[in-house]
Amino acid sequence: MIRIVVDCFGGDHSPKANVDGSLSSLCRHKDLQLILTGDKSLLEKELDGKSYDTSRLEIVHAPEVVGCDEKPTDVIRLKKESSMIKAVRLLRDNDDVSGMVSTGSTGALVAGALTRLGTIRGVIRPAFCPILPTMTGGVVGICDSGANVEVNSDYLKQFAIMSSLYLENVYGVSKPRVALLNVGVEAEKGDTIRKEAYEKLSGLECINFVGNMESRDLLSGSYDVVVCDGFSGNVLIKATEGTALELLLKVKDTIYSRTAYKIGALFQKRMFRDLKEFMNYQNYGGSVLLGTSKVVVKGHGSSKAVAVEKCIEQAYMMEASALSSKIEEAIEKYDNYEE
Amino acid sequence: MIRIVVDCFGGDHSPKANVDGSLSSLCRHKDLQLILTGDKSLLEKELDGKSYDTSRLEIVHAPEVVGCDEKPTDVIRLKKESSMIKAVRLLRDNDDVSGMVSTGSTGALVAGALTRLGTIRGVIRPAFCPILPTMTGGVVGICDSGANVEVNSDYLKQFAIMSSLYLENVYGVSKPRVALLNVGVEAEKGDTIRKEAYEKLSGLECINFVGNMESRDLLSGSYDVVVCDGFSGNVLIKATEGTALELLLKVKDTIYSRTAYKIGALFQKRMFRDLKEFMNYQNYGGSVLLGTSKVVVKGHGSSKAVAVEKCIEQAYMMEASALSSKIEEAIEKYDNYEE
Repeated sequence: MIRIVVDCFGGDHSPKANVDGSLSSLCRHKDLQLILTGDKSLLEKELDGKSYDTSRLEIVHAPEVVGCDEKPTDVIRLKKESSMIKAVRLLRDNDDVSGMVSTGSTGALVAGALTRLGTIRGVIRPAFCPILPTMTGGVVGICDSGANVEVNSDYLKQFAIMSSLYLENVYGVSKPRVALLNVGVEAEKGDTIRKEAYEKLSGLECINFVGNMESRDLLSGSYDVVVCDGFSGNVLIKATEGTALELLLKVKDTIYSRTAYKIGALFQKRMFRDLKEFMNYQNYGGSVLLGTSKVVVKGHGSSKAVAVEKCIEQAYMMEASALSSKIEEAIEKYDNYEE
Repeated sequence: MIRIVVDCFGGDHSPKANVDGSLSSLCRHKDLQLILTGDKSLLEKELDGKSYDTSRLEIVHAPEVVGCDEKPTDVIRLKKESSMIKAVRLLRDNDDVSGMVSTGSTGALVAGALTRLGTIRGVIRPAFCPILPTMTGGVVGICDSGANVEVNSDYLKQFAIMSSLYLENVYGVSKPRVALLNVGVEAEKGDTIRKEAYEKLSGLECINFVGNMESRDLLSGSYDVVVCDGFSGNVLIKATEGTALELLLKVKDTIYSRTAYKIGALFQKRMFRDLKEFMNYQNYGGSVLLGTSKVVVKGHGSSKAVAVEKCIEQAYMMEASALSSKIEEAIEKYDNYEE
């Protein structure tokens, strides 16, 4: 049995999306057990009338909710009865609970995970690794996308090891092509950190390092994961998602501006629906935090049920594939960094 | 008379695009004089049969061409007879020549400009400021987009002053809204450099600082210029341009996959042409280098005639608006940095 905690509050569509996503996940995996944290009466109301295997769903009462603009350190110190911090503590205190999913405040979740859970042995700093769809029908991971705004080349080396294992084990990518985000593809490009990282990744036997990548090629399908500091990774993913959404909006607005365009669009209804689906991050789950001692998945604040279900699926797959112990082994074998 | 040098080699469509763009510019401005550098016989062949005011066009023979993968320091040292380095020297040696345009190697151009031209008095480091169209019909500048992969908050402060003046003087934006690129909008977000820069920009009277900006909002129309280090600025502009191009390609491919979509597209021909035009960087000129003692505009390597013409227009407007002396005054008044 794989046991996962779902923080049911803090997202835009909480608790409905979190509860519905949880129930779908229970249908999908017969060896999955879920613990929902949040206000018990509200959760019971949400579950009322829905059919599910009650032996695999438990509610742990947590009356407080973490707001998205609360200071992370305050949350940890003062909001012990919140659905998020209760979930973190359940994860920490129970050996048989292997992961958690939250759609709440990213800052509070990272702070909670780092201070309460700690890292996998040997890991310097955990990193986020969200996934985007590529133009060739695959996916690409971005590691780190924001957990560490300041890094050094040792961090980047570990991000490469962890994210490569993640793509291999959770997405079934064989020998993931790992790239380093840089301002040009030539080996000597970038700042000191990038030059050092390039050298370290080139010499790393356990990954398939394919060199530097420019941000414009993220969606090309030529890379399976791109390694970067959390600042530029954050710029990268938000620019990519933001531009795609703005452009689709622009197309939509333009179509409504002329009758001929609208007539044309009647023939393409399914196309625009497919394109929208393609760029819909809800279909690609959340950002997993790689390197914490237990699995933590951060869903987007605006996650609907389908996105929450994907997040639970990611947590489930990470545990089912024993990703954490594979990361621990690889770090021990290929990375002799001493803090 | 405003005199500008055009490096006619080194781009994908050189020398044709550079020559044709130059001739269009001469038509547009009667007080513009151009000096074309490059192989004289090739340039004469390109000009042959075209009508233009010969008194305002001069050729300076430069038989060598700078390749895009040559080491910048080698170019400066060894390629003195190249069209690019000749252009830089013409700019340096002639008081009445006010700017240059090149579609050649960025690295060589930056190195040449920094070592041969120097900076405006008080400027620590010049920075690139390319322009993108926004969804509301305006433009947004990104400063720096790659000249400085490592910066400190003093650099960022100067980038803000220079780019704000650029948007005001060359694009006619009144009180440009200046933002700082960051991982979130809250004041305390980001690394040490960002936190320091936030404070410095907040206290800067000569700009209209509107706070932090996330990369997803670049094209929203809420900002006129975004200030960043050259590494993340490079990631930002290439991710934005790359995603837009990939997505338009995806739409095109999808349309060709089904007859109904193709029929629909017959009603939308003009729409797709307009959208393509909208995202076509050729229409927005080049990246100007802000802070060098004389005007330097870097056109995209794939610039066609229309893009070269826009680059010359930018150089012309920078000189016509006396941007350099305005930058010098502002730096002197609002920035007491001592090197």
